[in-house]
Amino acid sequence: MTLINENYLKLKAGYLFPEIGRRVKAFTDANPEAKVIRLGIGDVTRPLAPAVIKAFHDGVDDLARGESFHGYGPEQGYDWLSKIIIEKSYKPLGVELMPSEVFISDGSKCDSANILDILALDNKVAICDPVYPVYNDTNVMIGRSGEADDKGYYEGLVYMPCTEANNFAPALPKEEVDIIYLCYPNNPTGMVATRTELKAWVDYANAQGSLIFFDAAYEAFISEPGIPHSIYEIEGAKTCAIEFRSFSKTAGFTGVRCGLTVIPEQLMALTKSGEKVALNKLWNRRQSTKFNGVSYPVQRAAAAVYSEEGWPQVQETISFYMENARLILAGLKAAGITCYGGVNAPYIWLKTPEGMKSWDFFDKLLNECHVVGTPGSGFGPSGEGYFRLSAFGSHENVQEAIQRIQQKWGK
Amino acid sequence: MTLINENYLKLKAGYLFPEIGRRVKAFTDANPEAKVIRLGIGDVTRPLAPAVIKAFHDGVDDLARGESFHGYGPEQGYDWLSKIIIEKSYKPLGVELMPSEVFISDGSKCDSANILDILALDNKVAICDPVYPVYNDTNVMIGRSGEADDKGYYEGLVYMPCTEANNFAPALPKEEVDIIYLCYPNNPTGMVATRTELKAWVDYANAQGSLIFFDAAYEAFISEPGIPHSIYEIEGAKTCAIEFRSFSKTAGFTGVRCGLTVIPEQLMALTKSGEKVALNKLWNRRQSTKFNGVSYPVQRAAAAVYSEEGWPQVQETISFYMENARLILAGLKAAGITCYGGVNAPYIWLKTPEGMKSWDFFDKLLNECHVVGTPGSGFGPSGEGYFRLSAFGSHENVQEAIQRIQQKWGK
Repeated sequence: MTLINENYLKLKAGYLFPEIGRRVKAFTDANPEAKVIRLGIGDVTRPLAPAVIKAFHDGVDDLARGESFHGYGPEQGYDWLSKIIIEKSYKPLGVELMPSEVFISDGSKCDSANILDILALDNKVAICDPVYPVYNDTNVMIGRSGEADDKGYYEGLVYMPCTEANNFAPALPKEEVDIIYLCYPNNPTGMVATRTELKAWVDYANAQGSLIFFDAAYEAFISEPGIPHSIYEIEGAKTCAIEFRSFSKTAGFTGVRCGLTVIPEQLMALTKSGEKVALNKLWNRRQSTKFNGVSYPVQRAAAAVYSEEGWPQVQETISFYMENARLILAGLKAAGITCYGGVNAPYIWLKTPEGMKSWDFFDKLLNECHVVGTPGSGFGPSGEGYFRLSAFGSHENVQEAIQRIQQKWGK
Repeated sequence: MTLINENYLKLKAGYLFPEIGRRVKAFTDANPEAKVIRLGIGDVTRPLAPAVIKAFHDGVDDLARGESFHGYGPEQGYDWLSKIIIEKSYKPLGVELMPSEVFISDGSKCDSANILDILALDNKVAICDPVYPVYNDTNVMIGRSGEADDKGYYEGLVYMPCTEANNFAPALPKEEVDIIYLCYPNNPTGMVATRTELKAWVDYANAQGSLIFFDAAYEAFISEPGIPHSIYEIEGAKTCAIEFRSFSKTAGFTGVRCGLTVIPEQLMALTKSGEKVALNKLWNRRQSTKFNGVSYPVQRAAAAVYSEEGWPQVQETISFYMENARLILAGLKAAGITCYGGVNAPYIWLKTPEGMKSWDFFDKLLNECHVVGTPGSGFGPSGEGYFRLSAFGSHENVQEAIQRIQQKWGK
């Protein structure tokens, strides 16, 4: 008799975004005339940069001719893409990497989930609360937790609350943990970590022999100087951290699918008998066996993000979104709503008015303002009473959404 | 201290194809003037069909304009693609499916590896020998086996020998197994299963409550009438089988990346306490949480495979490759080499001349004929003494390779 992986049954609710999708669909089915403005899922809305489109077409054209056809590519991605990422995105930060340390993938969500394959189940995992749900759910699914309690905390996982009280910067865990997920700029709070804060994490990890998963998917949105874009800007990070990056938000690739994972050659973890094993080799084996590389034209498109024409175009779109973030922040503050983030990230983390529960505010915002956001509690128990708005709409939509919110809640 | 998944250390050698790549590179580095003909890795060589290229470009152009931009798509793939696959590829076989039963992915290799996520570790797994290495290695990596013995059989996995003695059709296992991998047309042997043979498997699986993973990646190459293209042509298969399909070989998508997995709604597996759970729901949850959908332009390109212009173009390329298969078969037979497959599959499975070991024949073929093939033993112990040639080259290269082999081994 075939048996299922029963860990899946521990998962409390559907994954957050499909649930939002269902509620929005129910509303729009019932109110087909309503103009719903979506600032919920962190999905981009602006077209790809012209230079990226051109390279994407060129890549497709290569597949139209025998002499330039590309079949299976390296499972780790093409060297020319890894090299340009290192050159344009890491070298300027003072970070030296080798192409063998960069693994191109079809997205950061997949990588941050699949990376668990190469690690033992008995590692103790710490995640922030609130957090990108994938970190939590994938650990539950793979069997690293018990059941969830009433609050939504799964037995066996260590949650690090990020609240107003600690300015959304989690404290080092008191118990020993083996794997720590950090995401900066943070999803969902939009907050960043200073160099000093990250140094404390790197020192902790190196001292404990723990591993940091550093999700830098939003690094391109950092506007303030001095904020680290990569964990490898911190001394000692190469012996304790894996970094995930994505073209999704940086260059509007949410529907195109390209990301990358950096695993330095010197990064080790242990067998139970204490033997050191390079995680780069294990991930390489995982990807060689379970993955078949990223679409060739997509990799061509990704490389063009860093081209002379592409980079300023990509920056312009980022500035466009960050102007939205500014509008949202200013508008909400003017309405007397307390909010965070939005300066170095495309997310604004607001305290719900009148201490409403997050999903109540979601329903109210949807039903009365026709605006979709993301309930903070969907990111973890400490997100209760908070709400995430994303800055990926058009200026007009963002302004209209803010006006509707101000009319409803403004003093 | 972070601990690794030690199951990875059980893996004997590097994944087969990277090992081939290393040996070929060593040869070409030492012999830069040699004209090496590659009939090893099953990688296509012909350009994409013009209709596919056009749709691919159209998809890219959609991303260049705000009004037609596509961000995150459904993790399960776009409905319009699932629907056209059902309509054009399953309905003609008499197989009815719903779009919710078709999951679009970035390739069959990923799916056939990742599907293990949703099943308990204590399932007993049966695989053919020889076999596509991914089935074996992913079960080892996830922890479903002990160590390998001297022959290369991993403790705990059930191997079903496919040899000349049984005409490469494995017998039903004597011990009870929970998961059975079948691949027809077969990689590596190029052999197919008749309707009667598949019916025996389906009946066995339904009687035992076991699950069949049916890999139909090569179904488009079936040339003889009456051979099933889908496991669902067999009555009862929807309650015991998951089918994997791919655009890789069908339409030359090895570098483009698109495949699909079919999980019928009525397909169930059990919890330990005997409760039935729909595998479709579990896979849906897996994909929603750990995957982010296939690149939108790629899905547009895949849909065009089934268009009025696209389908005949795609068929023409398949005929081209099958003409290669015919040439290889005829040429090898003329040289007195015993071979199988090549009629309903792009693979020819040959017995090495003079009873050579597979890797010895590989080295001899590379060094003396400058032809690359795949050693049968790389697909499992029962592949020792066999060798796989694939039909994906140009006619000229295939003819030249066969001539070189005939000069070397012809009587």
